[in-house]
Amino acid sequence: MTAQMSTWLLPENIADVLPSEARKLEELRRRVLDRFRSYGYELVMPPLLEYLESLLTGSGSDLDLRTFKLVDQLSGRSMGLRADITPQVSRIDAHLLNREGVTRLCYAGSVLQTRPRGMHATREPYQIGAEIYGHAGLEADVEIQQLMVDTLALIGLSEVRLDLCHAGVLAALLSDLPDAEEREYPLFAALAGKDVALVRELAADLPAATRAALVALPTLYGDVSVIERARALLPATPAIGRALDELAFLAAQVGGVDVAIDLADLRGYQYHSGVMFAAYVEGVPNAIARGGRYDHIGELYGRARAATGFSLDLREVVRISPLEARSSAILAPWTHDAALREQVAALRNAGEVVIQALPGHEHTVDEFDFDRVLVERNGIWQVEAR
Amino acid sequence: MTAQMSTWLLPENIADVLPSEARKLEELRRRVLDRFRSYGYELVMPPLLEYLESLLTGSGSDLDLRTFKLVDQLSGRSMGLRADITPQVSRIDAHLLNREGVTRLCYAGSVLQTRPRGMHATREPYQIGAEIYGHAGLEADVEIQQLMVDTLALIGLSEVRLDLCHAGVLAALLSDLPDAEEREYPLFAALAGKDVALVRELAADLPAATRAALVALPTLYGDVSVIERARALLPATPAIGRALDELAFLAAQVGGVDVAIDLADLRGYQYHSGVMFAAYVEGVPNAIARGGRYDHIGELYGRARAATGFSLDLREVVRISPLEARSSAILAPWTHDAALREQVAALRNAGEVVIQALPGHEHTVDEFDFDRVLVERNGIWQVEAR
Repeated sequence: MTAQMSTWLLPENIADVLPSEARKLEELRRRVLDRFRSYGYELVMPPLLEYLESLLTGSGSDLDLRTFKLVDQLSGRSMGLRADITPQVSRIDAHLLNREGVTRLCYAGSVLQTRPRGMHATREPYQIGAEIYGHAGLEADVEIQQLMVDTLALIGLSEVRLDLCHAGVLAALLSDLPDAEEREYPLFAALAGKDVALVRELAADLPAATRAALVALPTLYGDVSVIERARALLPATPAIGRALDELAFLAAQVGGVDVAIDLADLRGYQYHSGVMFAAYVEGVPNAIARGGRYDHIGELYGRARAATGFSLDLREVVRISPLEARSSAILAPWTHDAALREQVAALRNAGEVVIQALPGHEHTVDEFDFDRVLVERNGIWQVEAR
Repeated sequence: MTAQMSTWLLPENIADVLPSEARKLEELRRRVLDRFRSYGYELVMPPLLEYLESLLTGSGSDLDLRTFKLVDQLSGRSMGLRADITPQVSRIDAHLLNREGVTRLCYAGSVLQTRPRGMHATREPYQIGAEIYGHAGLEADVEIQQLMVDTLALIGLSEVRLDLCHAGVLAALLSDLPDAEEREYPLFAALAGKDVALVRELAADLPAATRAALVALPTLYGDVSVIERARALLPATPAIGRALDELAFLAAQVGGVDVAIDLADLRGYQYHSGVMFAAYVEGVPNAIARGGRYDHIGELYGRARAATGFSLDLREVVRISPLEARSSAILAPWTHDAALREQVAALRNAGEVVIQALPGHEHTVDEFDFDRVLVERNGIWQVEAR
């Protein structure tokens, strides 16, 4: 019995989605994709598997560690299971579509990760997101942020806080250093973790002004007045000035949310290049959606394009969203009566759920609420309240 | 340049689904899942990855060869990428839901295969299907077959031929042999391939009546009169009689299709136990949907349940279905005008696709047909034909 029992155990941090949750996930998935489409975002479906070098983007990224690897029997080459869909969509924009103008793309699908992000996190998030390519101006960032806020409202999350950050600030602080590239990743990780002691240690041998600025970043958090504080605390270089101007512009643009500035919230910095943002809701510690600019990712595929986008994990959102999926249904008997069969077909075509009770199983338990029954009255089948 | 160029090449028999095809696939996916739901099938979403022993069902199956394997860093155990969703759904029925009565479940998702089924076949089919558990009677088979025919009609495939077969015939022919289990798989493969010479060779040492019956199976193909021919040619055992009675009953039940009998069409025999069926459309050599009874699969998970179901590859169906996805859209300018913003939001909420042309990119090329524009007339934004 033990050997048999183990066959239904799933690996850690891997789970089935059962009926009521699956129904809700499907409902949210449709609403989100329909909303993306209403903004003109075209759906694409990249594969689950690609050659490893196509999937691993950015330097010093932890994507490599998070990616499952296997060998392709047909080519003998290493393949990976996607841990993030964004680089795939960049590849599609860069090469398959190869359009000159603006391209809006969206996607929805599972990604797989070798290790969970936290004790109770899944290793198979359901990533859904939208990306806009080919426009370097802030209008694209405004559209993407508005789309994110709009999408969250649509799935019942209207009390959202939008945190803005900018990848250009850290890049500008390190830009004069000969070993900027090696320093970047550890510093980003320490900043994202708000580990000030570690930031201090990593910056110990840097010029005093740079060190002071790096140590100040985790304190530059709060409402939009933080932007003015940042102007006073950070070096007044053109790049930093531009980054702060961009944040000030965007903070004033997106409607329907509280905006906060957090200059150290750099998660995703591996491939981001400009404004980054995250959405938070009351009572949930982690961001429920994240996005930002990543103008350089296309270089991996030989064609850099201005790009910005956002994504969220629909499995996580299912747990948070207050929406309920409907489940009312009509119970019908099983007979060989042609009139019953026609009536059942007509009701189903009209969008009703009609379940025929199979002989001997008239008392079925499932997610449906049988609020009506199909009964025969004087030779005519009709729907009645139960 | 060469190194860069290769990063956008995909592995053989792996492909992206680009906008117009993805839109159609999504449309078909929704229609099919909605139809399943209208019959009372509850959606479940099993994971892409499981422990290998949970995924590999049935004896002598080729599922093992088709399944990608990798090692779980958390447990050190072997995991597999699903190559078939049906066994996963059986596991859910057997253990997670664990209901006593009838359970109807459906699913939709990618599966992965180490080798393609044919030169141009994908290694990432999109499997969508429905399963009914807990009812051994033929009413469940009727419902599943009707659902398949109904589903195909809904996606524009109404000229369908339904081929019926029965796994019980081969099992009954071999049942008296001491080495039935070892003989079963090679014989099933030879029969499925209609390789009469190989069947003759594999049956060379069997009793004459059994050999004659096995060699006759590939000839038992045609309209329902085949059932009577089979009664004459095959041994008149109770099990064979019962199998033929079941085929005769089902051939008379399902409406709206031509029914054919093919006693050697045993693909999928690895886990099937009773009536099996396949749907064919004009001009397409392979079956576009397949299904059948598999009452023993739950044994792997410690709880055998009567079961029947069907599935199809939505990527294949997308190429065959005559349905067209709509793509009409409204082109709007980009301004900071609050009235424009409101009008755009209202149109999107009403189900329209409204695309704002970003500054400098007024001539965008994509899948949408901009048949209307949003223009300002006397201070009011309105939709006009283009």
